[in-house]
Amino acid sequence: MHSILHRVVIEASPEALYQAVAEQSGVAAWWSKCEIANEQLSVFFGPSDDEMRVDFAILSAQPNEELSWQCSAGPWQEKGAFVFTISADERGSCLHFAHHGWEETDDFYQHCNAKWGFFLLSLKQYLETGAGMPHPNDPNI
Amino acid sequence: MHSILHRVVIEASPEALYQAVAEQSGVAAWWSKCEIANEQLSVFFGPSDDEMRVDFAILSAQPNEELSWQCSAGPWQEKGAFVFTISADERGSCLHFAHHGWEETDDFYQHCNAKWGFFLLSLKQYLETGAGMPHPNDPNI
Repeated sequence: MHSILHRVVIEASPEALYQAVAEQSGVAAWWSKCEIANEQLSVFFGPSDDEMRVDFAILSAQPNEELSWQCSAGPWQEKGAFVFTISADERGSCLHFAHHGWEETDDFYQHCNAKWGFFLLSLKQYLETGAGMPHPNDPNI
Repeated sequence: MHSILHRVVIEASPEALYQAVAEQSGVAAWWSKCEIANEQLSVFFGPSDDEMRVDFAILSAQPNEELSWQCSAGPWQEKGAFVFTISADERGSCLHFAHHGWEETDDFYQHCNAKWGFFLLSLKQYLETGAGMPHPNDPNI
């Protein structure tokens, strides 16, 4: 099994970083329009809400330390967990992002790896400047 | 062994994409100041030329199809080859980027994976708009 793995240092506190990945207003500011309720995250991609809805079960949530999701409906439902691990860093905080459970490093893996490169920079920019680059601002790769 | 693997579709011809990764003026426009001569690529990072010079041997060069480098002096000299594989795509061209030969998916792997996410978008932006985001415009992650 393979994983998508990124490490990004962000000039924001672990508390602010956790809020940005755990709260609806945070996720919407760097990834895409979403709803969080009843331990589920639903993310909406595309021009209308019906275009592409992806559901995630929130597997674990340890404030300011770790958050994990499992895709329950959508293109990653056969893959493993998405894990955001947060630690303190001299410049603010350090995020280790993982998306586990890929059987192959195929084109879809490589596409998603490149997309996460973009969205994690959007997350960093959101926390450092107040303005992220959520979908549909992502590049059409 | 592990690899850093990204797939990016770029709205430019395979010929233009190959030039952007194989020629000095191309690499300087999306990655960093560099020199290409005698089958060697030297890239300069940092405020002055002496700050961090990284040398790569050009292992293979198949115009408009594939280019590969081996770091010969610098932080990746114990790792494997960097390979840019280019194919035609209905929107222009498709780049598969690989950096092979990582024994572990450690912090340095994860940092470099995130950095390549940025620089490959810089390459795409350079080819599609004429303006890349070469070092020192890269985010301090």
